[in-house]
Amino acid sequence: MKRFVDLADFRRDEVLALLDLARSLQAHPQPQALAGKILGLLFFNPSLRTLASFQAAMARLGGSSFVITPGEGSWRLETRLGAVMDADAAEHVREGIPVLASYCDALGIRAFAACKDLNDDLSETVFNAMADLVAKPLINLESAANHPCQALADWKTLDDFAVPQNGKFVLSWAYHPRALPLAVPAAVLHMAAMRGMQVVVLRPDGYALPRTIMDKAARAAAVAGGTLQETSDRAAALAGAHVVYAKEWGATAPYGDAEADAHLRSTLRDWCVRDSWFATTRVDCRLMHCLPVRRNTAIADEVLDGPRSIVQHEAHNRLVVQMAVLHQMLQGV
Amino acid sequence: MKRFVDLADFRRDEVLALLDLARSLQAHPQPQALAGKILGLLFFNPSLRTLASFQAAMARLGGSSFVITPGEGSWRLETRLGAVMDADAAEHVREGIPVLASYCDALGIRAFAACKDLNDDLSETVFNAMADLVAKPLINLESAANHPCQALADWKTLDDFAVPQNGKFVLSWAYHPRALPLAVPAAVLHMAAMRGMQVVVLRPDGYALPRTIMDKAARAAAVAGGTLQETSDRAAALAGAHVVYAKEWGATAPYGDAEADAHLRSTLRDWCVRDSWFATTRVDCRLMHCLPVRRNTAIADEVLDGPRSIVQHEAHNRLVVQMAVLHQMLQGV
Amino acid sequence: MKRFVDLADFRRDEVLALLDLARSLQAHPQPQALAGKILGLLFFNPSLRTLASFQAAMARLGGSSFVITPGEGSWRLETRLGAVMDADAAEHVREGIPVLASYCDALGIRAFAACKDLNDDLSETVFNAMADLVAKPLINLESAANHPCQALADWKTLDDFAVPQNGKFVLSWAYHPRALPLAVPAAVLHMAAMRGMQVVVLRPDGYALPRTIMDKAARAAAVAGGTLQETSDRAAALAGAHVVYAKEWGATAPYGDAEADAHLRSTLRDWCVRDSWFATTRVDCRLMHCLPVRRNTAIADEVLDGPRSIVQHEAHNRLVVQMAVLHQMLQGV
Repeated sequence: MKRFVDLADFRRDEVLALLDLARSLQAHPQPQALAGKILGLLFFNPSLRTLASFQAAMARLGGSSFVITPGEGSWRLETRLGAVMDADAAEHVREGIPVLASYCDALGIRAFAACKDLNDDLSETVFNAMADLVAKPLINLESAANHPCQALADWKTLDDFAVPQNGKFVLSWAYHPRALPLAVPAAVLHMAAMRGMQVVVLRPDGYALPRTIMDKAARAAAVAGGTLQETSDRAAALAGAHVVYAKEWGATAPYGDAEADAHLRSTLRDWCVRDSWFATTRVDCRLMHCLPVRRNTAIADEVLDGPRSIVQHEAHNRLVVQMAVLHQMLQGV
Repeated sequence: MKRFVDLADFRRDEVLALLDLARSLQAHPQPQALAGKILGLLFFNPSLRTLASFQAAMARLGGSSFVITPGEGSWRLETRLGAVMDADAAEHVREGIPVLASYCDALGIRAFAACKDLNDDLSETVFNAMADLVAKPLINLESAANHPCQALADWKTLDDFAVPQNGKFVLSWAYHPRALPLAVPAAVLHMAAMRGMQVVVLRPDGYALPRTIMDKAARAAAVAGGTLQETSDRAAALAGAHVVYAKEWGATAPYGDAEADAHLRSTLRDWCVRDSWFATTRVDCRLMHCLPVRRNTAIADEVLDGPRSIVQHEAHNRLVVQMAVLHQMLQGV
Repeated sequence: MKRFVDLADFRRDEVLALLDLARSLQAHPQPQALAGKILGLLFFNPSLRTLASFQAAMARLGGSSFVITPGEGSWRLETRLGAVMDADAAEHVREGIPVLASYCDALGIRAFAACKDLNDDLSETVFNAMADLVAKPLINLESAANHPCQALADWKTLDDFAVPQNGKFVLSWAYHPRALPLAVPAAVLHMAAMRGMQVVVLRPDGYALPRTIMDKAARAAAVAGGTLQETSDRAAALAGAHVVYAKEWGATAPYGDAEADAHLRSTLRDWCVRDSWFATTRVDCRLMHCLPVRRNTAIADEVLDGPRSIVQHEAHNRLVVQMAVLHQMLQGV
């Protein structure tokens, strides 16, 4: 495997094989599999799980890693082509990224959406420009509109809790004080569709997921025999759900307009997932979230501290599936 | 050993065994003892010795480590129970800490005192709430009112310099531009008492150590056959001392009141340890300090650069005793 | 090798042996050569290549490393002797540096020029004061007026591209929005002279390199049979060049005077290296730069993206030559 940047780059059976490998490494550790291998990690944005779990994953497999954080101990990096660099950025990604790649065996890059121009973000302009500079194996640690490591960890989590392949998966918008990127909702939606689930996107008006994201998930659903719907009707969406996957994202109608977005969300504070949301779901309905989550803003304590929440299991699976990705990418190379 | 959060959790013979192990690892390195083991390090506050020495300790034993610093490359973490998280913190420790613990074999946490409410700090409200979330082995890297790694390193340092078990140990307040936490004075006082020394706390009026801290040390002194006194009489305190341990801490009468504290300490700049302090101590009296220390503010150059100072030896012993803690915690687990 | 702080500390044949070792490690990796060894890295200033390549170099040789960044996760360090520390810095280098050195097998320190007093910077007052505190092997990661790792990597790069030993090497000043230190121009100038090249320093009026720097390079040129000239005549300098090494640095006439420097450089924006600069060079003339470089400010896209640029090769050689330095310093120790 040369790149792990989008789950959609893989066939369904390839993803299943990766999940098998993850389970195998969990049961039978291979503490020397990546001895001598180095992972470079480039973080344009903050991280807790990704930062810790990738370092831990390399260590669990006998390898090592280094971390570069532009603006914190490292130079600010310019990403715009043709820029006349007389402002803050001391270095361009066109130098910085190939150089970092030349020091390691695989490079991971995290670069959140700029949240200004929807098309730029959906077409992964920034991440793709950087990916083009990397000749080594490359991992997407979350880009403008994707987060394949999260999607893969969530797939494994659904398997671990024996959620039926064709179960009802509700991706629900949740309140957040400000607009967040579309990366996780896009990646998780596609994952659930690719898994073959009955997928419903539940979100208030103004927060419909962009057509590109819905179409990609619909194609995956069609291949896997699942379905895909979108609604603002909470009661209808939640009825009979196997899983509620809560996630915050920014308005898409006035995309990138912080003021309009703030106005729109000011009336949406009741989109905090509470126990009452589970009145008509299946009794054993699970609550998922990629983390970090703001308690009592996006999800109430009563849910996060209750038996439905499997958010920590999801987070731990980040480590497990990333070991599989790294193993397949670097072992024997 | 499941937890290393307070030296008082151990019997005296257990501490002595840990010190024996430290000496043994110093004499006979075990470069593969913790092969494959991972230490997670969570720093809510700055660090130099702890940050470097724990990473070095794991490497010296064949293991590895990762570092998470909330607010610098990682999300700010909320610690208050029940908080409605609509401000700066993106994640709650109730998620973040179990997740980090799930990626490693042992977790270390540094969280300084808030220095607002004395009872909160003395009862370790914040650290204990976090500790309750950790199922893995846990190390206290300095909490509101404790610093067991420093205490253990200092005990070994006293042994290394053959300071008599019942020698006179003077914990002296020292000037600092602002109020510092009680963690080190509390931990070191207890350690010297537990070692069986004749302990004197020397501090200006307004800086008496809280009753809880004195009582705990008194109990340890009683068990070990030592004594414990507190005074503001510098001449009496220093006479015949084997060790002067200088440490800065905040006023306890107006605890957490920065203005009152500043007023109180404005007249105390002569509490900078100078050569003249050693006129009536034993000739071979040692100067100790946990570091970092502000030169010519808390301790004069003439003392730090003179033969009495063993502060660097103390700092090096951090590495040595932490190897013993990690070894006992993780080896063969 | 006990110290790697200045290429001038080594005889020419010793440098050649180091380059041979670098090539050997490149061809025949030694993944266990430094097993169990620890490198401490202390960064007073930002870094990308040095930060990543030293960690990678240790990992490639089986060792490990830790990073301390004063002011970012670690205490601010005071460097002035005799300072009364009642301001920002919590710790003095006189404590911090020996302590860090005691945790590792070799220590690397980066401390840029203060760019206030030319003599202070040229005499390496700050770096030398810190170096005096280190009993362990020490590596200069860039000091006020030196950058031996960059110089050694550049020497290897010249060899890799078969640039003749007596080829024409033009060190050209390049535009930057503000004054940068003299470390790289000084180190690279000396390296080219020590290699035996026909060295020309090309720079606008007001940017002449200090006499100390020129004299040192001239002595090296004399030993190696090379030459050294300085000029502001771009046409004459570039004619027949084998290599143009672009580098930004601050005015030396009004050294440390930001306002005067800004005024001086305001008319120098045409010192951005463009394809037109190579009209009279050799056809195969190479473009070198230590990175980070500001595109279209110091060097135009057309040059950096064209076939003359070997800047990424230089950067990769940082890893390669540093493995040689670390190997010679720590292997078998």
